[in-house]
Amino acid sequence: MSRVLIFLSVFIVLTACNQQKGTGPIKVGTIGELNKAFENAKAGDDIVMANGVWKDVEIVFYGEGTKEQPITLRAETAGEVTIEGASNMKLGGEYLVVKDLYFKNGYSPSKALIEFKINDTLIANNSRITNCVIDEFTQADRDVTDHWVGFWGRHNQLDHCYIAGKSNFGPTVRVFLKGNEHINNHHQIVNNHFGPRPRKGGPHGETLQIGDSYTSMTPSYTNVSNNLFERCNGEVEIISSKSNFNEFSHNVFFESEGSLVLRHGNYAKIDGNVFIGNDNSKFIGGIRVVNTGHWITNNYFYKIKGNEFRSALAVMNGVPKSPLNRYNQVTDVVVAHNTFIDCISPLQFSVGVNIDKKDVLPASEIRSERPERFVLANNLIYNQNKDNHPIKAYDKVDGVLFKNNILNSEDKSDVTAHGFITKDLQVDQISENLFVPNQNYEDVYHGFDFETITQDIFKSDRTKKNAIGAMVLPIKDNTVLMDKKLYGTDWFSNEAPEQNAETIKVASTDNFQDLLKRAKSGDILSLEPGTYKVNEALIIDKNITITSANVEQKAILQIATEVNAFELHPKGNLNIKNVVLIGDNTQKAFATLDKNMSKAYDLFVENSEISNFKTVLEVSKGSFADTISVVNTTIKNSLNGFLLNKETDSKGDYNAEFVLITNSTFDHVQNNVLNYYRGGYDESTIGGNLVLSNNTFTNSGKGSEILIENIGIVNVDISNNTFKNNPVKTIAVLWGEKGQKPVDNNIQNSGEIKIEQNLKQKLMY
Amino acid sequence: MSRVLIFLSVFIVLTACNQQKGTGPIKVGTIGELNKAFENAKAGDDIVMANGVWKDVEIVFYGEGTKEQPITLRAETAGEVTIEGASNMKLGGEYLVVKDLYFKNGYSPSKALIEFKINDTLIANNSRITNCVIDEFTQADRDVTDHWVGFWGRHNQLDHCYIAGKSNFGPTVRVFLKGNEHINNHHQIVNNHFGPRPRKGGPHGETLQIGDSYTSMTPSYTNVSNNLFERCNGEVEIISSKSNFNEFSHNVFFESEGSLVLRHGNYAKIDGNVFIGNDNSKFIGGIRVVNTGHWITNNYFYKIKGNEFRSALAVMNGVPKSPLNRYNQVTDVVVAHNTFIDCISPLQFSVGVNIDKKDVLPASEIRSERPERFVLANNLIYNQNKDNHPIKAYDKVDGVLFKNNILNSEDKSDVTAHGFITKDLQVDQISENLFVPNQNYEDVYHGFDFETITQDIFKSDRTKKNAIGAMVLPIKDNTVLMDKKLYGTDWFSNEAPEQNAETIKVASTDNFQDLLKRAKSGDILSLEPGTYKVNEALIIDKNITITSANVEQKAILQIATEVNAFELHPKGNLNIKNVVLIGDNTQKAFATLDKNMSKAYDLFVENSEISNFKTVLEVSKGSFADTISVVNTTIKNSLNGFLLNKETDSKGDYNAEFVLITNSTFDHVQNNVLNYYRGGYDESTIGGNLVLSNNTFTNSGKGSEILIENIGIVNVDISNNTFKNNPVKTIAVLWGEKGQKPVDNNIQNSGEIKIEQNLKQKLMY
Repeated sequence: MSRVLIFLSVFIVLTACNQQKGTGPIKVGTIGELNKAFENAKAGDDIVMANGVWKDVEIVFYGEGTKEQPITLRAETAGEVTIEGASNMKLGGEYLVVKDLYFKNGYSPSKALIEFKINDTLIANNSRITNCVIDEFTQADRDVTDHWVGFWGRHNQLDHCYIAGKSNFGPTVRVFLKGNEHINNHHQIVNNHFGPRPRKGGPHGETLQIGDSYTSMTPSYTNVSNNLFERCNGEVEIISSKSNFNEFSHNVFFESEGSLVLRHGNYAKIDGNVFIGNDNSKFIGGIRVVNTGHWITNNYFYKIKGNEFRSALAVMNGVPKSPLNRYNQVTDVVVAHNTFIDCISPLQFSVGVNIDKKDVLPASEIRSERPERFVLANNLIYNQNKDNHPIKAYDKVDGVLFKNNILNSEDKSDVTAHGFITKDLQVDQISENLFVPNQNYEDVYHGFDFETITQDIFKSDRTKKNAIGAMVLPIKDNTVLMDKKLYGTDWFSNEAPEQNAETIKVASTDNFQDLLKRAKSGDILSLEPGTYKVNEALIIDKNITITSANVEQKAILQIATEVNAFELHPKGNLNIKNVVLIGDNTQKAFATLDKNMSKAYDLFVENSEISNFKTVLEVSKGSFADTISVVNTTIKNSLNGFLLNKETDSKGDYNAEFVLITNSTFDHVQNNVLNYYRGGYDESTIGGNLVLSNNTFTNSGKGSEILIENIGIVNVDISNNTFKNNPVKTIAVLWGEKGQKPVDNNIQNSGEIKIEQNLKQKLMY
Repeated sequence: MSRVLIFLSVFIVLTACNQQKGTGPIKVGTIGELNKAFENAKAGDDIVMANGVWKDVEIVFYGEGTKEQPITLRAETAGEVTIEGASNMKLGGEYLVVKDLYFKNGYSPSKALIEFKINDTLIANNSRITNCVIDEFTQADRDVTDHWVGFWGRHNQLDHCYIAGKSNFGPTVRVFLKGNEHINNHHQIVNNHFGPRPRKGGPHGETLQIGDSYTSMTPSYTNVSNNLFERCNGEVEIISSKSNFNEFSHNVFFESEGSLVLRHGNYAKIDGNVFIGNDNSKFIGGIRVVNTGHWITNNYFYKIKGNEFRSALAVMNGVPKSPLNRYNQVTDVVVAHNTFIDCISPLQFSVGVNIDKKDVLPASEIRSERPERFVLANNLIYNQNKDNHPIKAYDKVDGVLFKNNILNSEDKSDVTAHGFITKDLQVDQISENLFVPNQNYEDVYHGFDFETITQDIFKSDRTKKNAIGAMVLPIKDNTVLMDKKLYGTDWFSNEAPEQNAETIKVASTDNFQDLLKRAKSGDILSLEPGTYKVNEALIIDKNITITSANVEQKAILQIATEVNAFELHPKGNLNIKNVVLIGDNTQKAFATLDKNMSKAYDLFVENSEISNFKTVLEVSKGSFADTISVVNTTIKNSLNGFLLNKETDSKGDYNAEFVLITNSTFDHVQNNVLNYYRGGYDESTIGGNLVLSNNTFTNSGKGSEILIENIGIVNVDISNNTFKNNPVKTIAVLWGEKGQKPVDNNIQNSGEIKIEQNLKQKLMY
């Protein structure tokens, strides 16, 4: 290179850098200064928010940056600017960048926390949110709906963010397509870490929703790549794709109780994703398929053990000429080159068929149309414990072409028409959760357009050497399924520091109330024998264990008249062991707040006695318990038992995910011992969960016709109980369609357990 | 250029030519030779069919050509190879070209005449039909469904063809999208001349259908450009677009009784088309809009005078969350830069609204959703006779943004919110039917993405100078709307040669039967006074006029017992004037064939007398009359009148388009004087048409409860008639919803004319 050329190059580079830098950082310390900075904003500006707490700020960031000179809004130090209180942010204009902010201890005063538009005419395009954290920025009232990131416009991006802990109604991230300004958007949702989203108890708890039922014809082209979805348990849909031409690639779904669902819209590409379940959960799903033209390739499913909606690959039946908001038939779908390791019946067809419910549902709800022109080829299934039914079919499978799939078990499904070949295949573990076959099976089927599958899950070339399954050998050294460096910010970790839980000894002469307040989350209050007078409600807003120091001499909590013993607050986690709770029939043993139950609580009772209460547990409408567990406990002489029946909107929501009552005794509970309700015909609500086993119920229910109400609860196990001398007509009504039936109960003079095959419910749509 | 370079260039050109030419023409004279040629076909082959008639041939053309070296099948001389009889053609493979063939005097023995596939696996791609004619290659039985050109695969083309005269069920050209092999097809339908398609009488008479209700989500990208649609009157949809991303540009729709309909599917582009109507027809339509995301720009509408479905721009109401086969809401549509000259209320919104029919229709049929996010801007409306209602709104217009539209009348529509500006605009006539404003109105509205409208209707640049309406001045010299050179083949003309109609004098001693047989279409048989014995049916398979030489002494046709007087065959056009027809109550005066009524017939009766027949007119189920006209005629002493009630499938079809009975007398007709039926709830059937006026009906109907049956006929005019002493309860039942009402009839001792507001009909869907 000549000296002139070198000089010129250096000059150009310097000039370019200079242009990009604008006039140096514009530092702002107040919302007033920030607004002024926005007013004067020009391309290249670098607006810096001073470290500290920014409380109750509604940021409206309008600016016209350029590709070369965006306008940036950032924290002085990444993570040191916290947006708190009633705060939100709207963006409008071109080429804006927001980075390094930390949203916590707050909630949005509007329907969204961050939106890529200011109003219907001031829309953001080519703009970006990066390296930010949104943590539990959830509404006080769980019933209030919002979303945290609302995409509008085109070419916007959310990347390298950590987002977790949304408990209220509404998808965490939404892409809107309402209007030509927002279609063909090519938004990028990449390299984020979606941390745990708690179980919500009903629908509207998606982590990501793209479009809605009105946009099932709309081209979106949203790209969702290289994200980690960690325990996104909000509802049965982790991602709900409701528009066309979206791409989901190289994401990791880690122990998330739901599926990537192609709910509305068509021609999605799902490539190279990883779905990781475990041995303990049947709730962790994979991909659920509705509609037309999807390509599902190179995905890796590990220990996905769910059924139907929660199976690794759930292919639904459709409604004939479906209304816009119901289920279109599945057609023209390709599922190729996927690997399933230790999944149970990973391929499930005609999920949701309900032809037998013609009598209780209108025609527009009957899913009778089977998948058509569906190609399932070159997939690999390996099970350490042989699984002879790789396929579960809920209807005839006559529209699926099975080609060159291999598995290591004998295929006893009678639907595959020789498209499954049993091989003596072996797998090697390469890294955590990653198992690969020890040889390439190269006899691949070449279907229409299969030449477009040019890479494997690890982006190795398939065009020279190809193999059945998600990967082509050899696998590069140090290959992992989940590289945590890829996801989230460069400054935040959601790995909680080690807790030093303490055991605090309490005597009956101590101020128990005060000690409880001062205890840290995780601490144990160990009560010396004696009687503890409780004159005001014990507030549980953290993880607290209350136990008796001496199991043989249980501490007695004597509750004052009309005082509720325990008041359960959001995130309260109460463990009671070996304690006696005594009321005088005027109070509740456990109660939630009446409102603002923003997050879930848990209640565990073990080896205890609860007696003489008006109500054992009473909850408020907006409250939600993740788990209520009662073990080895006696409950007696009370008016009401556990009342989890306040969510009566009948839109699929309910008040508790798990209710587990085992080895316990109920005696002289006058009304329902349990009332647990979920209303609304919603095929995609798959909770709650009730286990009632090895209990004894006596002399209870005389004030109601039925002992146990469990209307609409999907998973119910009533087994090995003894019901004796309960003056009721009915012990419980089970829901036949959901496979509920009583098992080995001993019933004496106590009415009967009935089964109703098809529950009549209020239609939600 | 150096000599070496020249040499090299010449060498390359020669080599290329050589490669393209293959081994010279392969001439074939029989189907056997043709099949052999196909068997051996290789890229570059030029297969030539010998001139002459190829009868009953089923051609299966498989070959693998290349882009540079296609395989061609052609006529020895364009137009001199006629494919006749029971013949069809299937194509499979790559880069095939079919040209110069003439399909006539025949019909397809299968569901299609030409198909771009041989079977589900042998599909044609990159193939082309060009310079061919398909003329009246219609099924013998009108009820049999087929199509003439079936597109499958991708990148196929139909160009420079003339296609006309399909009378039977089924769209003339169909594009199929059933399967991934056929989507994103980018088919080209260009430079064709779609000649007259006769009225069909009910649905399934489209000239072009792209997809179906199941493909409303499917990307098609079919391009329909530079075609002429001349009197394509098959049904209310000339083109039915039922898939996504189709383009319709620079086509001319000339006096075609229907519309370009965006029936299902979204994101169509309709640009630069011409719609030409006339002063006499309210049936000639423009564009009908359903669904989302269409751009309708630069179109020119001239004398489109229809209403509702047939208006220049008909924007429909949708069904809430519509089923797949009904009507989605219209959203996100842009209608910009169109010109409307001498159209009446060209912009009609919420067409099809039927909220008032909630009682007689299910919810899935109720079109209550108004257009939303609809932009109507920069359009120009000119009316020589002022039209103060450019807009007709059948529901509230609250989702439409009107911007910068201009018109030369005062806008008295109350829905446009100042988006229509009255200008004193003048137009100049440039060429036939082409009127342009005499100045540019440059105050254009810049809506979202409007910068993509870069050209006007004549492809002039809009980016430098822009104007409201379809064109930007100046207009180039010699600009025409319709350049006939662009459309159809280079060898065929549909302009009929001048007919030399003769008048043939007939005496009662002549062999009338024989003279009729020998007459040419168009001839007139002029009957001397006298009585003509008709001992076998007179067959009408051409255009024949039978008249009396002396109006004062009408010829008498005396029909033998059980002989029908006239047998109407396909394409028969019978004109009877000044004739007396007498039967003996055992025969029909007019009857169609019982089957194989492949094409429509017409019947005109004027100044005649018809008496003593069993039935005046009886038709068969598959028959269809375009027009039945009875003027100044007496009909008496017969059992039945006109029976047009055999098409009873109740799927929207019917037996006659126009029934016009005026200034006539019916006396002593024992049963119905007329029975004219159309069944099936089908909002898109807009026929038939009944005019009954200035007639006298006496002493008729005693054998039935009703004198005139007209169930389901959409357009009915019963006016200025006298009904006297007819022993019926009911004269007729009119359909209130369609605006039918009796006008100025004189009724004496004859029952009544009733009105039923909402006819209960069989649902078709």
